[in-house]
Formats: sequence, C-alpha cells, structure tokens
Amino acid sequence: MLKRGPVPLANVAVMPSTDGSARPRHLGDLPTPALVIDVDVLDANLRTMAAVHPGAALRPHVKAHKCTSLARQQAAHGHTSFTCATPREVIGMARAGLGADLLLANEVVDPRRLAAMATAARETGAVITVAVDSAETIAAAADAGLSSVLLDVDVGLPRCGCAVDDAGRLADLARARGLEVRGVMGYEGHLMVPADGDDPDGHRRRVDEAIDRLLVAHAAVGGDVVSSGGTGTHHLHRLRPGVTEVQAGSYALMDSHYGTHGHPFGQACHVIGTVISVGRRHAVADVGLKAMGMDHGNPTTSAGAVWFLSDEHLTFAPASTAAVGDRIGVVPAHIDPTMAMHEDAWLVRGDEVIDRWPIDLRGW
Amino acid sequence: MLKRGPVPLANVAVMPSTDGSARPRHLGDLPTPALVIDVDVLDANLRTMAAVHPGAALRPHVKAHKCTSLARQQAAHGHTSFTCATPREVIGMARAGLGADLLLANEVVDPRRLAAMATAARETGAVITVAVDSAETIAAAADAGLSSVLLDVDVGLPRCGCAVDDAGRLADLARARGLEVRGVMGYEGHLMVPADGDDPDGHRRRVDEAIDRLLVAHAAVGGDVVSSGGTGTHHLHRLRPGVTEVQAGSYALMDSHYGTHGHPFGQACHVIGTVISVGRRHAVADVGLKAMGMDHGNPTTSAGAVWFLSDEHLTFAPASTAAVGDRIGVVPAHIDPTMAMHEDAWLVRGDEVIDRWPIDLRGW
Repeated sequence: MLKRGPVPLANVAVMPSTDGSARPRHLGDLPTPALVIDVDVLDANLRTMAAVHPGAALRPHVKAHKCTSLARQQAAHGHTSFTCATPREVIGMARAGLGADLLLANEVVDPRRLAAMATAARETGAVITVAVDSAETIAAAADAGLSSVLLDVDVGLPRCGCAVDDAGRLADLARARGLEVRGVMGYEGHLMVPADGDDPDGHRRRVDEAIDRLLVAHAAVGGDVVSSGGTGTHHLHRLRPGVTEVQAGSYALMDSHYGTHGHPFGQACHVIGTVISVGRRHAVADVGLKAMGMDHGNPTTSAGAVWFLSDEHLTFAPASTAAVGDRIGVVPAHIDPTMAMHEDAWLVRGDEVIDRWPIDLRGW
Repeated sequence: MLKRGPVPLANVAVMPSTDGSARPRHLGDLPTPALVIDVDVLDANLRTMAAVHPGAALRPHVKAHKCTSLARQQAAHGHTSFTCATPREVIGMARAGLGADLLLANEVVDPRRLAAMATAARETGAVITVAVDSAETIAAAADAGLSSVLLDVDVGLPRCGCAVDDAGRLADLARARGLEVRGVMGYEGHLMVPADGDDPDGHRRRVDEAIDRLLVAHAAVGGDVVSSGGTGTHHLHRLRPGVTEVQAGSYALMDSHYGTHGHPFGQACHVIGTVISVGRRHAVADVGLKAMGMDHGNPTTSAGAVWFLSDEHLTFAPASTAAVGDRIGVVPAHIDPTMAMHEDAWLVRGDEVIDRWPIDLRGW
C-alpha cells in the first residue's frame, strides 16, 4: 500500500476540489466520469516492476500517466530516470524536481519547444537527453542549446528511428555538432504483444532479433545507454544482456489490452461511471468516448457486456439488474490516451478516497 | 468569411500565447499538433445550415466543438438556443452570456452538478432545460431547483430515453414535481448515416419511423418543443413537419465520417502536424491518437496513406516525397472527441493565423 511505501502520499488531508467544495471522501461521492486509481494495486505494480528492473534499469515512461505525482511514486521506488514523449512532459517533470535524467524518446524539430527544454534544464539543473534520427533533428537539438542525445534506431516498428547502418554516421554528426551521444534507443512497439499464433518462444525470438539490430547500431554509435522495451517485453529484457534500461509505462496502471497477456500487474485504474438510464435490455452509464481512449477498441466492465460508446455514454447489457444511480467501474482498453482525457485522478483504497492527483502533463 | 459576418472576430490583434510569446502569424509557425479551423469554410458551413434551419429551428450542439467562441459565431448566424451534453458545457455557455435557451440533452443525477446548473441559471438569467427519462432523473432535477425539462424518448438508438408509451406518465410526474415540461426530444443517432445497402429513400423512411415514435410521445407529453436530429439527418427534417428544432453539431467543423455522405458542408477543421522522421517507405508526423478521436477509425490526410497512429505519431506512406519539417493536414474521423483533446483552436485563412479560440468547455 502506498501509505506504507517509501514516500508517504502527499496531501492526504482534505483538499479543496476544483469547484471549491470539500474533497469527496467516498467512491460514491465522486463526480463521474471519474478516473480512479487503486493505491494498493498501483503500489503492488510498482514494487513488482522494481524487483525485476530495479533503479536505473527501468526508465518509466511518463506518457502512460502524464502525472508528476505518480512519477514521484516511481521515483520513490528507485527509478529516477524517466522517459517522456512530449516537450511538455519533459519540462513538467523538470519543474516538478524529477529531472535527474529525462529522455525525450521522440523526435522534435520545433525550435521554440526545444529551446524551452534547454531553458528548463538550465533553470532546474535537469539532465535532458533527446532522441534524434536524422541530420535535421540533430541540427535542431544542437541549435536549441541541448547538450545530449540518443540515436533512435529503427528496430522493426515502422515509426521513427534511423536505419541501423546509418546510426554511426549520425552519431559522428551529432558529436561534430558538440552533442554528447549517450547511446541508442529503439522501441520494438510492434512486439509489445505476441502476434496471433506466436508462442512465447517465437515472441522472444522476434524481440531478440529486434534488440540484435539495436546492439549492432550501438556498436557503431557508442555510449553507455541502450534503451528499449516496454511493459509487453519487460520480462524478456531480463533474460538477455544488452539493453541497459527498459522504457515501460503501462505497467503502473494497466489496461485491458495488456491485461490479457499474463503480466504480473493488476488493473490499478478504472473510470467510474454512474448509471443514468435503464432500458429493457440495456443500461447507460456516463463514461463515454471522451473519457476513454478508443484506439484499442471498447473498454470492458464487470457490470455487463459493452455494446457501444458515444461521446458521453456507455451502453451495456447489465450482468445483473441495474438502477439509475448505480456506479460501474470501466477498464480502459488503452491507458495512455485515457489519462490524457482527464484533469485529475482520484486515489482510492476500497471505498475511501485518499487523494487527488492532477494529470498535469497533458498537451504538448 | 467570418470577418464579413454579422459579428467580427474577437481579438484579431496579436494575443499572447500560453507560453508568453507572440501569437504565431503563419500556419507554419504553429506549434504542432495544432487544431486549425479554416474561418471561411466554417463561415460557409454556418451560413448553409442557417439557410436550411434558420434561427430557433436549429439548436446547435455544443458537444461537437466545446468552444464558446464558436458558439458565439453560431449565435451571430441567428441560433440562440443551444444543445449541451454535460453540465460543464451548460454552465460555461451560461457564464459566457450564451444562455438564452440551453438544453442539457442528457440525463444527469449528480445533485452537485444539477445544483450548479440551477445556480448558474439564477446568477446569469440563463434558461436551462434538462432531459429526463425516469422518475429518478425527474426527482434529481426537481430537487436541484431546476425549472424545466424535456422528456427524452427512445426512438430506436439503444441509449437514453424512455419508452414511447411511458412518456405521458413521466410528463405528469414531472409536472407534479413543479417542473415545466417543454416537450420531447429523441435522438435517432443510429440513423445519422445510412445503413449499408440503404438507399436515400430507405434512410428517409427509417428516420420518418423514428420521428413518428417521437411524435406519438409528444402527443402524450405536450409542450412546444420537439427536438431531434443531427448533421446526418438535418436535410430530412426539412422535408416533413413535426420536429421543431434540429440538434446538429458536426456540421460546423465536419469530419471524415460525415464528410463522405454528400452533405453541403466543407471540412473546416484539420489537425496540423509536422513531419519528424522519414523512412524509406514511410514518414512520421507528430499527430498521434492523443490529438485525434479514434473511435471512428483512422483519420485521413492528403499527404498520403495512413498506416497507423501511436500516442504521439502518425505513420503514413507519403503521396510524394516527404522531408523532416514538412507540415501535413489531417482530417479527424470524429470531430467531437478531437476537439476535447485540444486546449485551443487556431483560426486561419490560407496561411494567415487570425485568432485563437480556447476550447473552454472540456471536461464534465
């Protein structure tokens, strides 16, 4: 439980809510849709991952929660280097005092945002490293006054990342521009879940092949860092040498997509809804697609079978009788975009509301 | 064009941006992902709809844009009654001086939010009507001090709405609680686009059947208002009597879902991205699924064929050569959740940035 963890939860006393009223004390008092985090499940997830990849062997990905309060819990579990996807995440983490070692694992060419990151580094003492995969991104980082980079390498996911055989040339180019090249990163995002029909050995082989590509690039680039992986492959990186740090994020809160793949993490996050209408064969809760990332499909709920979501509604066939005013818990199919849709997360233990964490790293 | 419209665009002079720098003057200066509205296309859409459903015959749905600045333009085109989906939309519209006739076309049983709407009505003089479809929602509205309701009727979409043959009883119940019953609403959301294989006559017949159900309920309920329809059926309601007002919202900005169905509205809204990485067969722009509603599937772009979206990336096969730093325009598949993901919309004419509108009605 978090209150037994190494850092006590901040602000456990009643804090004012955004509308000036007192903080809700019970789950049933929360205005819905409400993003709710079970502190005990969260803490168990953080402990489990910290046991597998302790300290700097994990670089938790902030994009999965966009919440400095949650990042602070990850730091309390020993992980003080973080992965970010946007400049706003980087700057927010730096200004929250969590800037010991921040990686922007994404390419940015916006000179104002790159300069804002360099300013945040100067003003807070944060160490900020950005991913680069081209002459243009190297020039943009150098021009903005940033000091260090990782070479982002294409390991099979058709997204960002230079070709393996171009990594050495780009590293030389970065050094020629005065940038420290700390190593390589490569995200095997196409392998986060096994392909249909793939067995665990086949999955592991495919991940190994991706990491082999990253290590070939690393040999040409140099540096201490080989950063890769995610929640879906974190267990495989423990089994082979090479990767120095894993960029997992979803493990902390989880979703129904990762939840079906046997990882040792519980579902810590639900969106709570209120039943607002009951038909003959269906009921409707106020958890719509504006409260829930839909790119991985419909969410799930133990309250019944989900028929469809509208902007502000979830229509479902109740597993048992449903009444107006009932609360239901909904498990998002994809946690990352779900977090980005909410202003706050409510921390709960059982029926008790313990704290509220702002989702303070939303936007770009 | 809006600058020739009945209300001049506010704040056309340079306004400070959120980071304190001067407002970007050109499309190429916008930080991306950027939600961009073409003022001329928007204005043409508003004029076209106002010609079909003038004044109070249209009750524009605020959920499609969540932006009081855009609502103000709709008011300038003669529509001063509005539809909302959340209490925050209602309260925000009331406090923005757009509360002449606000309908919350949704069931709410949260006593605090209902009371906050009643307070907003008292403090601003707004007229606020809420949808009810059960004894519980009627009691909640009455207990909160709200004064008027519409009976929400199930016209075939399995979502909210009472049974047709229960509407009269519920109207009596509402009147017994001292509520003014203004009439009925029913949303034929299952018919916003024709079913596969349906011809226009078949589609129209199905919409007519849904509206017939609403009119049967109306005969039992009474009141002046019969509120229904949306962008996808707005043209059919013009062809038959019965519905007194249409609740269309998407027509103002449009999306690729409605865009393929021959409506006389242009695509006014794009999300602009910057190409941040170029591979051998693909390129990557910084418009991910956190910037784009994904429930209707992938967005489209004239820049090429969309392969997939990640949290912060759009991977596509470029139609022609792509270079890091290029800008692309992306058409969301569903405008409503896309708007809810952005803090601001940028108003543009050609390459020129004219204004910035806060998306100020996000959340609940």
